[in-house]
Amino acid sequence: MTDRLAQQLGFLREAEKLKSVYRATALPDQSRRENSAEHSWSVALYALILQDQAGEGVDIARAITMLLLHDLVEIDVGDVPIHAQGGSAHSSAAVKEAEERAAARLFGLLPEGQAEQMLAIWLEFEGGVTPTALYARALDRVQPVLLNHAGGGGSWREYDVSFDQLEERVGVKVARGLPALWQAVREHVKPWFVSHGKA
Amino acid sequence: MTDRLAQQLGFLREAEKLKSVYRATALPDQSRRENSAEHSWSVALYALILQDQAGEGVDIARAITMLLLHDLVEIDVGDVPIHAQGGSAHSSAAVKEAEERAAARLFGLLPEGQAEQMLAIWLEFEGGVTPTALYARALDRVQPVLLNHAGGGGSWREYDVSFDQLEERVGVKVARGLPALWQAVREHVKPWFVSHGKA
Ligand SMILES: [Ca+2]
Repeated sequence: MTDRLAQQLGFLREAEKLKSVYRATALPDQSRRENSAEHSWSVALYALILQDQAGEGVDIARAITMLLLHDLVEIDVGDVPIHAQGGSAHSSAAVKEAEERAAARLFGLLPEGQAEQMLAIWLEFEGGVTPTALYARALDRVQPVLLNHAGGGGSWREYDVSFDQLEERVGVKVARGLPALWQAVREHVKPWFVSHGKA
Repeated sequence: MTDRLAQQLGFLREAEKLKSVYRATALPDQSRRENSAEHSWSVALYALILQDQAGEGVDIARAITMLLLHDLVEIDVGDVPIHAQGGSAHSSAAVKEAEERAAARLFGLLPEGQAEQMLAIWLEFEGGVTPTALYARALDRVQPVLLNHAGGGGSWREYDVSFDQLEERVGVKVARGLPALWQAVREHVKPWFVSHGKA
C-alpha cells in the first residue's frame, strides 16, 4: 500500500467516528436522535434534490462536497445544538476555535495537497460568503426544521423554542441562501407554533 | 408552497426512513450496526477522497450522486447482506425486482422530469457498466471490508467468511472498478483471515 493510500484510508477510518456523534434533532418517528454522519447524508441529498432553488453562482457538486465534509470537526468538538443556551452557544468564539483545530487535525490526516484542498472547502463553508457556501449553509439549517416538524416538534419542545426564536436563530440564515425556500418552509411550520402557543 | 417543492420535500421526508434500515456491518467499535443512510455518507466520502484512484471516464460528481441515492430502495426492500445465504441472496432476481419497484415508487415521489433523472442515475449504478458506475460500485463494496477489518472481523465472523469467499463475493467486484485499490486492500486484510484460520 502506498503512503498516500494509507493516509487516505486512515482519514476515512477516522471519519467513521462521526456516526457516534449525536445531534439534538430526533428521527421523525422519535425512535432516537440523529447522528451527524446520517445528517450529512441528508443535507447532501437536499443539495441534490433542491438544486433548482439555487441562485446564480452556486456550484451544486461543490455544495455537496461541503456538506459531506462540514460536520467532521464534530468528531473532536461534538455537536453544539442551535437552540442550546438560548441560541448563543452555537457560534461562540470558543466553539469556532475548537472547530478550526479539529479541521486542522482531521484534514491533516490526508496526503499533502489533498489536505489543503479539503480544508479550503471546509473553510469556504464556514466563511458563509460565496453563493455555494450560502446555499449549503441554508440547507444545513433547514433540514432540522423539517425534521422537527415531521417529528411533532422534536427539539423545539426540548428547548421551548418560539416561532420568533426560530425565525431569528434559523430563518434569517436559511433566507440568506434560499429566501423563497424559507418563505415556504416558514408558512409550512408556523401552524405548529400557533397550535402550541409559541407564535 | 408550490406543488413542485411539496413533492421534493415529500421525497426528502420519505428518504429519512433510510436511517432506520440497518446493515450487517457494525461500526468499528462494534457498538451497533451501521445504518444505510450513514453508509451512504461514508461511500460518498470515499468517492471524494479516493478520486485519484478513478480510471478514465469517471465523473466524480455523478459517482457521489449515485452513492447518495443507491440505497434508497432499501426503505422498501431492506438490506440484503452480501454474505447471507452463502452469498447467493444479494443478487437474486426476486431482490432485483423488488428494488426496481421500490425505485419506481420512491423516485416517483419527485416532480416529473426530476423523477426520471434520478431514476436514470440509480439505473446506471445498478447496471454497473459505465466507468462511473463501476467506480461507485467498487467503493460501495470496499467500505464494508475496511469496516469489518477495523472492527476486528465484524460480519466476517457472523457469516464465517473465508478469504477465498471474500475474494469471490467482493474482491472481483471491487477489482472491476478499482483494481489497484483492491490489490492494496486485499493485502491489508489478508492477515486477519490467516490469523483466524480462514485463509
Ligand atoms: Ca450541520
